[in-house]
Amino acid sequence: MPHIALDDRIPGLPSLLAFRPETAGPLVALAETLLRGESPLGRGDRELIASYVSELNGCRFCAGSHGACAAAQLPGGEDLVQQVHADLDAASVSPKTKALLRIAAAVARGGREVADAHITAARTEGATDMEIHDTVLIAAAFCMYNRYVDGLGTTLPPDPAIYTEVAKRLTTHGYKSALTRP
Amino acid sequence: MPHIALDDRIPGLPSLLAFRPETAGPLVALAETLLRGESPLGRGDRELIASYVSELNGCRFCAGSHGACAAAQLPGGEDLVQQVHADLDAASVSPKTKALLRIAAAVARGGREVADAHITAARTEGATDMEIHDTVLIAAAFCMYNRYVDGLGTTLPPDPAIYTEVAKRLTTHGYKSALTRP
Repeated sequence: MPHIALDDRIPGLPSLLAFRPETAGPLVALAETLLRGESPLGRGDRELIASYVSELNGCRFCAGSHGACAAAQLPGGEDLVQQVHADLDAASVSPKTKALLRIAAAVARGGREVADAHITAARTEGATDMEIHDTVLIAAAFCMYNRYVDGLGTTLPPDPAIYTEVAKRLTTHGYKSALTRP
Repeated sequence: MPHIALDDRIPGLPSLLAFRPETAGPLVALAETLLRGESPLGRGDRELIASYVSELNGCRFCAGSHGACAAAQLPGGEDLVQQVHADLDAASVSPKTKALLRIAAAVARGGREVADAHITAARTEGATDMEIHDTVLIAAAFCMYNRYVDGLGTTLPPDPAIYTEVAKRLTTHGYKSALTRP
């Protein structure tokens, strides 16, 4: 049960966006910029970083919804997302993506957990400054979204198929659609 | 040394805002809304939540700058901020503020660390849904800012007196001034 009085017809983050429209605007603008704005990282890879960090943080709502967004935009689909969530070392992603996801995992543990070795490993696989920057900021941002969603005890959707529906909307119309259609 | 090529004349978060203006906009808009927008929590108390979480996360830049913003806006000044950073239980803050700071500390550990008991304790001291919401979101947001600042290895200002100067600007002109005057 949520820790505060939220609309019980809306699960997860959207219930918080509806509760506090003043903060919803900047939160959604940030997600749109990070996950769909200009970046050397593809949208699918960015969603994969978001879902992987959410999985590591134990945030089922964010792992489910961003996992579905990643699956919708990556050739490997749902199977690839599940591989990454279950065991990054064994997952069928490129060495560069793997190195960036390891940076994201370090960020999830804490900012000071990112070591020179993580960065060197990513550069060895061809990662640029901008790719490293965007990886760190997306991972950091999901440490926020995850804590917001779980820290206020929001509910999960009754049917996980809803994640696929939500992903269809988000990958087509963008994150700002979350402000009008929870 | 920073993990990516940042302007070495600028310490901390502002060096990242200058590196990536596209993400700087939403990040600064979020800080402005959370820390200076409409809220039942005073600006000094919101800065205290931000600095306390940053201290718990070991982020010296954010603890220093938001600690200075809290000190500038709270009657207890710098001494009170240091008390909270050093030992919340013994600090001279109201029981309600203490209960909200304990919620913030739980958020710093993880979203699922916020227990019914933390919420009940805050409500017993008179905290409202909106105060609990804003506390959780500010704490969550600083788990992002802290990881962004430290995850990319930004530098500290050469002289800690700079925090007081920065706080003077931020508490007078707001966070959007960080986009034009690092």
